[in-house]
Amino acid sequence: MVRMSGHSDSGNNGGGGSRTHRDTAQVDMPMAPPQRTGPVGGVRGSNPVPPKPALTGPVPLPADGRSDASPLVRTVERHLDEILAAVPQPDAIELAVLDAQGLLCAEDVVSSRALPAFDQAALEGYAARAEDVAPASVRQPVELAVVGESVAGVDAPAAIGPGLALKVSAGAMLPAGADVVVPSVWTDRGAARVLVQAGPPAGSYVRRTGDDVAPGDSAVQVGTPIGPAQISLLAAVGRERVLVRPRPRVVVLSAGTELVDVSATPSPGQVVDVNSYALAAAARDAGADAYRSGILPSDPRRLAEVLESQLLRSDLVLISGTVASGGFDLVQEALAQLGEMRFSQVAMHPGPAQGFGRLGRDDVPVICVPGEPVGALVSFEVFVRPAIRLMLGKRQLFRRTVQAISGQQLLSPLGYRQYLHGTVMRHPDGGYVVEPVGDATDALLARMARANCLIVIDEDVTEVAAGGLVTVMPLLLGG
Amino acid sequence: MVRMSGHSDSGNNGGGGSRTHRDTAQVDMPMAPPQRTGPVGGVRGSNPVPPKPALTGPVPLPADGRSDASPLVRTVERHLDEILAAVPQPDAIELAVLDAQGLLCAEDVVSSRALPAFDQAALEGYAARAEDVAPASVRQPVELAVVGESVAGVDAPAAIGPGLALKVSAGAMLPAGADVVVPSVWTDRGAARVLVQAGPPAGSYVRRTGDDVAPGDSAVQVGTPIGPAQISLLAAVGRERVLVRPRPRVVVLSAGTELVDVSATPSPGQVVDVNSYALAAAARDAGADAYRSGILPSDPRRLAEVLESQLLRSDLVLISGTVASGGFDLVQEALAQLGEMRFSQVAMHPGPAQGFGRLGRDDVPVICVPGEPVGALVSFEVFVRPAIRLMLGKRQLFRRTVQAISGQQLLSPLGYRQYLHGTVMRHPDGGYVVEPVGDATDALLARMARANCLIVIDEDVTEVAAGGLVTVMPLLLGG
Repeated sequence: MVRMSGHSDSGNNGGGGSRTHRDTAQVDMPMAPPQRTGPVGGVRGSNPVPPKPALTGPVPLPADGRSDASPLVRTVERHLDEILAAVPQPDAIELAVLDAQGLLCAEDVVSSRALPAFDQAALEGYAARAEDVAPASVRQPVELAVVGESVAGVDAPAAIGPGLALKVSAGAMLPAGADVVVPSVWTDRGAARVLVQAGPPAGSYVRRTGDDVAPGDSAVQVGTPIGPAQISLLAAVGRERVLVRPRPRVVVLSAGTELVDVSATPSPGQVVDVNSYALAAAARDAGADAYRSGILPSDPRRLAEVLESQLLRSDLVLISGTVASGGFDLVQEALAQLGEMRFSQVAMHPGPAQGFGRLGRDDVPVICVPGEPVGALVSFEVFVRPAIRLMLGKRQLFRRTVQAISGQQLLSPLGYRQYLHGTVMRHPDGGYVVEPVGDATDALLARMARANCLIVIDEDVTEVAAGGLVTVMPLLLGG
Repeated sequence: MVRMSGHSDSGNNGGGGSRTHRDTAQVDMPMAPPQRTGPVGGVRGSNPVPPKPALTGPVPLPADGRSDASPLVRTVERHLDEILAAVPQPDAIELAVLDAQGLLCAEDVVSSRALPAFDQAALEGYAARAEDVAPASVRQPVELAVVGESVAGVDAPAAIGPGLALKVSAGAMLPAGADVVVPSVWTDRGAARVLVQAGPPAGSYVRRTGDDVAPGDSAVQVGTPIGPAQISLLAAVGRERVLVRPRPRVVVLSAGTELVDVSATPSPGQVVDVNSYALAAAARDAGADAYRSGILPSDPRRLAEVLESQLLRSDLVLISGTVASGGFDLVQEALAQLGEMRFSQVAMHPGPAQGFGRLGRDDVPVICVPGEPVGALVSFEVFVRPAIRLMLGKRQLFRRTVQAISGQQLLSPLGYRQYLHGTVMRHPDGGYVVEPVGDATDALLARMARANCLIVIDEDVTEVAAGGLVTVMPLLLGG
């Protein structure tokens, strides 16, 4: 298991500064809640609304009911804050440069070398003295004696004098005395003697020692994402390994007495465990090393054993279905044995039932999300992905959002932050247009698989008119 | 090795349709080439230009020279067309669903199951008959007798009649006779008898069998990128494995007598092999399974052996430094033994020297890029990344480009497509602003590592004024 250091050790994770990116309260609609005759949620098209549509969205209180808000109901922001404040950052580790790809550099890589290591030709041609070739033109070429050839990686004459030239390939060492390389295309490509048809200024087509990196220069800095260009530079300064923020190890578990493995044929009332697959994929996409551990056993002793052993090998444990499923009490009890877990109703749809705690000897963060698969993946987006990115040291914890024109009227209950799966497209006139997928807030799996974004409707917004602006979070893979 | 099928077998790769995305001729500048007194290339700031700056960019002909364009000089578009037309698509393979992440589905996954598999409660509450609870209100609640409890995954009473209710958890089977679930928060949460305070319309909070997917429905379609949502749906319909377009196996080799491995200390004139690292990282980022095979041996027999064995295990071979390096003839000769290789001068900067062929028994595509590291990675972007994406079956072969305001005057020689590394930022007033990195077109490694985009200046553009629009290709990792 990767050792942990406190999250406060890191100054550059931007956990605070990035908060502005999750502002979703940018809907250009009047904020006064419309008068309602009963609980309503969901999406309506421009077609006439049937008199009594079945309800499928979040559950508001009855129209004339008293408030019975539980003290456990909390906002999305508060639950997210609790998670981000408690998530540790794994200590930096040293990896081979190719394995470091996509991770953040955790050291200031100082070059002990000069790049280039020697004065060299930038292209194929003739090394010469600028003053010799200055008067050259096509009509009055300058003739030089070719004293030899310098090929990259091969020893060559050490110096040239007036009236002399050395044939050079790109990357070949420049002989002493030469201060210019005349490109071959400006010459007659002669072997013993060469006619030069143009004289470039001194320094032309020459790469000087240290032009790129001088000894003592910082080549790659702390916090730089390591991509092909950084790997190129690291290799050039002689680094085979580099210190990086590691991928957090995320173990994914599913809870629920109704669950059977995907290889089994479910009996009536049983459901295939899709969440351990979907959440492992989502965790990997977010940058984690994800391990799908599957369905938690229902035997209490075995359950405790599995949880304890997974805590030992994880930087983060992700469990779906601990709340509001058949296995509720059993798993919750087993978790309580390992530390303080807080289960909360979060004012969001889908997925009100959320949990978080730090358990076991190493206080490993454990995030519990709903067992319903759409709610599980939406909760991942809202709470788990930012936590994984914080552990990676990323500055940008949250997906970028755009404002899009809603193609339909969208309704949302007051007090809930609603996440609707949608498809967002560029508008021919600029900007974006978004349509919810399907016709209900209770997006199912096939609908979710057709979506390319989440539409985010803030807690204080109850209606977005067709044509109004709404916040959209494009769900790009790997982004 | 993955067997090959001809690229023309595939109808949905969009190799043709995507061509429009590489149009870069969108610069709002007058197209007439300015009068020049001599060869000029590079980037100038707003500072006064020194009288005779050293030349570092692409090499134009002498100002008064005749054209000596070689028949081998070709446009970027033509070289790219040749590569894309010849690149095969590996046959689809079956992978475990989690290993399929990020790849394109290559089958129409038809569900033999209904999703949900049974009528079920969408949330925790009481299953009841809508007509029984219709008159309920907070002041005049309706009382029902609770006949038992149905928990997800557990057998439960099979039916209810008038005046009866069944306590249900989310996902629990709905008993026959029930057509609505009354959310718990609308009741007194009674155990033996329950007081219902609001009556939702029939069908509310019920998920019907097959609402999501009916047997025979297509769940995931050919060409769909497989992400967490698709993995969720695949697992739900019982699929452990799925047919996908595989990641092409790309072997990366470096040629050049001046090269030493990164673990060695280079002697004078020697250079560390950075390209096999950088190009392997770039190939992996583009979606390939990349294998860094390192520096090609200089012994002709060993060289031939290495090339032959790598062709056998590759879908694509990528070699840097075969042209315009010390090992020119040796590697070129060895490649010629294996099939027809065409080496060309491509009218671009950096990286004019490019090569392509299909070699060996299986006609494996071999792409040769320059040995100079910046030219190698730019050539990868221009020629290799689109080829890898075509092999993956992606519709979008090319990186998206944006138009950005250039913060500096940019000069480019007529007839060359110039790629400059730059940093692009969002402008506070909207749109983008771009600055070239460093002060020369001959971007070196450290400059390249600071860039986040390529600035693309088309062949027929010789000057972009400060404040003019220029095409920019953001280099997002994983994009």
